[in-house]
Amino acid sequence: MKTETKTKPARPVRRRAPRTVRLGMIGLGPRGESLVAAMKDLAGVELAAVCDVRRDRVEKMLGILRKSGKPAPKAYADAAALIADPGVEGVLIPTSWNSHLALAAEAMAAGKYAAIEVGGASSIEELWRLVHAAEKTGVSCMMLENCCYGRDELMVLNMVRQGLFGETVYAEGGYQHCLAHLGHDLEARNERAVHNYFRNADLYPTHQLGPIAKTLDINRGNRFLSLTSTASRSGGFAADAVAHYGHDGRWGDARFAMGDVVTTVIKCARGQLISLTHCVSLPRPYSRHAVIQGTRGCWDADAGGIYVEGVSKVTHPIDAAGNPYEEHHWDPVEKYRRKYEHPIWHDYLRNGLVGGHGGMDGLVLAAFADAIREGRPTPIDVYDVAAWMATTALSEQSIALGSVPVYYPDFTNGRWMTRGRDTASGKYAL
Amino acid sequence: MKTETKTKPARPVRRRAPRTVRLGMIGLGPRGESLVAAMKDLAGVELAAVCDVRRDRVEKMLGILRKSGKPAPKAYADAAALIADPGVEGVLIPTSWNSHLALAAEAMAAGKYAAIEVGGASSIEELWRLVHAAEKTGVSCMMLENCCYGRDELMVLNMVRQGLFGETVYAEGGYQHCLAHLGHDLEARNERAVHNYFRNADLYPTHQLGPIAKTLDINRGNRFLSLTSTASRSGGFAADAVAHYGHDGRWGDARFAMGDVVTTVIKCARGQLISLTHCVSLPRPYSRHAVIQGTRGCWDADAGGIYVEGVSKVTHPIDAAGNPYEEHHWDPVEKYRRKYEHPIWHDYLRNGLVGGHGGMDGLVLAAFADAIREGRPTPIDVYDVAAWMATTALSEQSIALGSVPVYYPDFTNGRWMTRGRDTASGKYAL
Repeated sequence: MKTETKTKPARPVRRRAPRTVRLGMIGLGPRGESLVAAMKDLAGVELAAVCDVRRDRVEKMLGILRKSGKPAPKAYADAAALIADPGVEGVLIPTSWNSHLALAAEAMAAGKYAAIEVGGASSIEELWRLVHAAEKTGVSCMMLENCCYGRDELMVLNMVRQGLFGETVYAEGGYQHCLAHLGHDLEARNERAVHNYFRNADLYPTHQLGPIAKTLDINRGNRFLSLTSTASRSGGFAADAVAHYGHDGRWGDARFAMGDVVTTVIKCARGQLISLTHCVSLPRPYSRHAVIQGTRGCWDADAGGIYVEGVSKVTHPIDAAGNPYEEHHWDPVEKYRRKYEHPIWHDYLRNGLVGGHGGMDGLVLAAFADAIREGRPTPIDVYDVAAWMATTALSEQSIALGSVPVYYPDFTNGRWMTRGRDTASGKYAL
Repeated sequence: MKTETKTKPARPVRRRAPRTVRLGMIGLGPRGESLVAAMKDLAGVELAAVCDVRRDRVEKMLGILRKSGKPAPKAYADAAALIADPGVEGVLIPTSWNSHLALAAEAMAAGKYAAIEVGGASSIEELWRLVHAAEKTGVSCMMLENCCYGRDELMVLNMVRQGLFGETVYAEGGYQHCLAHLGHDLEARNERAVHNYFRNADLYPTHQLGPIAKTLDINRGNRFLSLTSTASRSGGFAADAVAHYGHDGRWGDARFAMGDVVTTVIKCARGQLISLTHCVSLPRPYSRHAVIQGTRGCWDADAGGIYVEGVSKVTHPIDAAGNPYEEHHWDPVEKYRRKYEHPIWHDYLRNGLVGGHGGMDGLVLAAFADAIREGRPTPIDVYDVAAWMATTALSEQSIALGSVPVYYPDFTNGRWMTRGRDTASGKYAL
């Protein structure tokens, strides 16, 4: 393909500089710092205002910005004041899981684009509130789900859209990440420790569910219909707590509600099945366990490959009884890179990666800024956010009731049947 | 360890030849042929009688045995006659899924050990019948689940028993094997095609569930408690059928009940969770998707490794915002081979592998013959068979009722709580 010869130029292609979008940020904790790190080299974005109830965090952030040569933003302690600031066009809200949805609804009620971090919901009601705020004012709430912009995730999305996998049938995703230290973080009121202490659910579903939802056209011709969720025994956090504190009758004897492994199985309206695994309390290598499987092809990140019918190798060995059988072989993911790299990544590599997590953080922020700049819908919109985050609240319900199937609300009120694939949100559309 | 220096002698260790056990075989189809291939070089086993309702299969089998220099067995068309033959000590029953359980019950009613092939049950009742037959006469029914004797499965079992994984929490298993050709095998009344045409369930759960059950001490201090099962859309077989026959209004338009992917989540009495995947209609590389995870270690066959806390490597890279984080790394499975090879495989390698599927077929047959020879319980017993195979019938129920949780019968009638780990079944004990 002719365009491919352009992907590796000697130096970056120069473009007209984009208009600068002025963002505010509420919540200046560690994730806020990561976002600022990702924004550091991002063209066309300015941090115009920051806000935190903790003065020390505001000071720290101002110091970070000063050090990196950025202009000093306005500083607020009150979120409502930042939202009301006419110099703020969009609001980044890397605050706690208990507060970011309400703040996003407030930002949208004021007519401003909102961006929240990944996580799950505590109730279905707070998601309806978010949807209603967006529908009322016409702006949107985007989740900064960086994995939607992962390089392999986007390449596989591209392959699926081009029909290489046939029709989609099955997907798997996991968040398997050893955060056992949360077992001794209750004392410090670490938010994730607190949620894991009180709740038994897939608390953190979106890292792989986001890309899966896009690949399966959720809310655009498809939707999540129901789920069952099952939790194992809980032991990992308690083991960490007792190792840290000993049996002190207090922190060392904390009993965490969260099962060490939670498996959630989602049924989709168009017949696909999604299996999610959540495991953050046991020692093991990180995995998002990505699988996308169709009638003609399959991607399995942990098995390390892609299989495409008619493309990938099939051999015919002989079994012990002398009969031949078929053996299908994985291709390395790289085999498909040249031909199926997603246009977003083509462009991104040409212009230089930005931010953490392999460049995904920079891309997702660029997508949010672009939507504001162009007055477009965000590529991850309020219906996506509501459907994805509902998974946590519904997983909690299902586990509480003994793994019964529970039903996803239709946050689009029927429009998922007629909403086509996203073309309105521009070059970052998923 | 001193014993290890003995594992690679210059030539096989000579032992006293075991007494020859006389087996009968009912069902001389392809799996019967595989078993005969596995028995070819197995010491202490004789095929004394064969039986099939199809005369052509009997003739073919007699030809195979003649060619390999084996003495001619008695030939029967009637299963009851083979079972009644006083020259038959144990009965191998590689017959159809609809007949092997009833035949096994008949063999046990006649006081003879029975061995069936892998598969699932159509009803809970046929499993109770099996259990009652075994309890009445004191012989047992073994499933020839070769994967229980897989080299890696046994090494991990050994590691778990030695405490390297801490307490078990989670297991995964799959049967992902492209058998899409079943889509055009209805016409030939291929048994698997027929079951996939009429039933929507995990039809073939035991390949990984067997080893998992042993690792989790099922029926010996633990048991399967309940499951939920969910099926995707069905498309793979139909695509194969139409590709083969065209839209002929008959075979080419067959509508298969089986979902392309069926996911089943099992809860255990001691709090473990097991996730099973069944997929036989889509093109993809074979996988049994083996995972065993505990509070201190994890084996993931597809990710290609083992992680053991305190043994495997942990590094501390720095993220984009400048904060360090922990990264856990897989060890190759081979790293643990020298120290944790299971004694069964130590012995097996010393004396020479036998039969197909990487030697597993030979081992599982040797285990069955050994139990008969020594008058011992079989290492996979009637309670194992009943619990494992119930998974299919229960998966079918759960799917039919919309993925509701369904309950496993306790085939031991409470004895699982006091039955200790198997020591009675000798050197092949699992």
